[in-house]
Amino acid sequence: MDLYEALYTTRAMRRVSTEPVPEDVIQLMLDAAIRAPSGSNMQNWRWLVITDPEKIATVGHLYAEAFDMGMKTVYAGAKERAEAAGDQQSLRVQSSSQWLRDNMANVPLLVVVCDRNDPTGSSIYPAIWNLMLAARGQGVGTTLTTFSSHFRHDETREALGIPAEKGWRVSAIISCGYPTGKWGVAARGPVTDVVFRDHWDNPTGWDVAGPLWSAGSK
Amino acid sequence: MDLYEALYTTRAMRRVSTEPVPEDVIQLMLDAAIRAPSGSNMQNWRWLVITDPEKIATVGHLYAEAFDMGMKTVYAGAKERAEAAGDQQSLRVQSSSQWLRDNMANVPLLVVVCDRNDPTGSSIYPAIWNLMLAARGQGVGTTLTTFSSHFRHDETREALGIPAEKGWRVSAIISCGYPTGKWGVAARGPVTDVVFRDHWDNPTGWDVAGPLWSAGSK
Repeated sequence: MDLYEALYTTRAMRRVSTEPVPEDVIQLMLDAAIRAPSGSNMQNWRWLVITDPEKIATVGHLYAEAFDMGMKTVYAGAKERAEAAGDQQSLRVQSSSQWLRDNMANVPLLVVVCDRNDPTGSSIYPAIWNLMLAARGQGVGTTLTTFSSHFRHDETREALGIPAEKGWRVSAIISCGYPTGKWGVAARGPVTDVVFRDHWDNPTGWDVAGPLWSAGSK
Repeated sequence: MDLYEALYTTRAMRRVSTEPVPEDVIQLMLDAAIRAPSGSNMQNWRWLVITDPEKIATVGHLYAEAFDMGMKTVYAGAKERAEAAGDQQSLRVQSSSQWLRDNMANVPLLVVVCDRNDPTGSSIYPAIWNLMLAARGQGVGTTLTTFSSHFRHDETREALGIPAEKGWRVSAIISCGYPTGKWGVAARGPVTDVVFRDHWDNPTGWDVAGPLWSAGSK
């Protein structure tokens, strides 16, 4: 796959089938993940590949609890606001997020990512994103979730035997599988709205309507 | 460029020439960056493309000060330890880091990244890494640096007019230019050392010796 196709079309693919992800694809995802840079090349990461259905169910049920906590707190009222505003894009995302909440216990693959000594995330998220891009190249959809880290951290850690005393923590859970929907370029505001030249609020001078890659590009 | 070539060969390229990066390449880097996912698709990011030599010098000199602070504190004694241990890889990284400290004021392009409401970095670092991968595809080397965010944050913010009162902060500075060295697969421990199956310390059962992509792979 072309690099830019992957960069432009890797987005949260929450709805996936139960079809297993082959071992060689999982290996490539993980092996690509660890090529990312980390501060001082410390590689302070561990990756739990969860393929046992019982373990997936345990982690998925904890995710559902964490998701519900998130909806009651940080996202309280978000659905009602989207409905009142007729914000179709937010409603679609909320619907697929609810799907993942209800179905994470049955996806074919979870990757639970652990880090330590990385308070800003600068050393773990490039590697996580490498894993998601590598999956995209093999047609595997992924979704980056962090609810469990916020609302069911210790329960998730204990279910997987992650040793807190060595400083390890659960950074994120990546849900993986073959998507039931289609890949496409994600909706984003125009690049010229969020990029400045040399100083805050100074326009770039670019005449770019946006996305510079599309399915028809070479 | 093939996706996996980019995933396996994008690494810190600190030593760069003074050759300018063309505007269309900069546009593609930024346009690809903002295709990354962010929590609730908030896109809470702003990107300052710094091409004015005076502004680059200002930001680069602040980086040199921040770097020196880092060497005196978090990295105190690191050079002596690497020398005592004969750790050639660390010594090479330290040498190129010193080069960037001495020369950031003269690189052709800096991208200063700002975020807000993203304490874990899960929303900004995928986008930063997209930018670095998109640059790789165009032969542009990048280095992710965070010293200025830790040790010269307010000075950098003020030099660029970043409005603290709206919650914006400097996440990272990405140094960019055409590398004077060669691209290659970065050295990493074996993937089987850092990946477990279903439970901490449980081996994957994989027989994988090492990079699954190399220059000869298709």
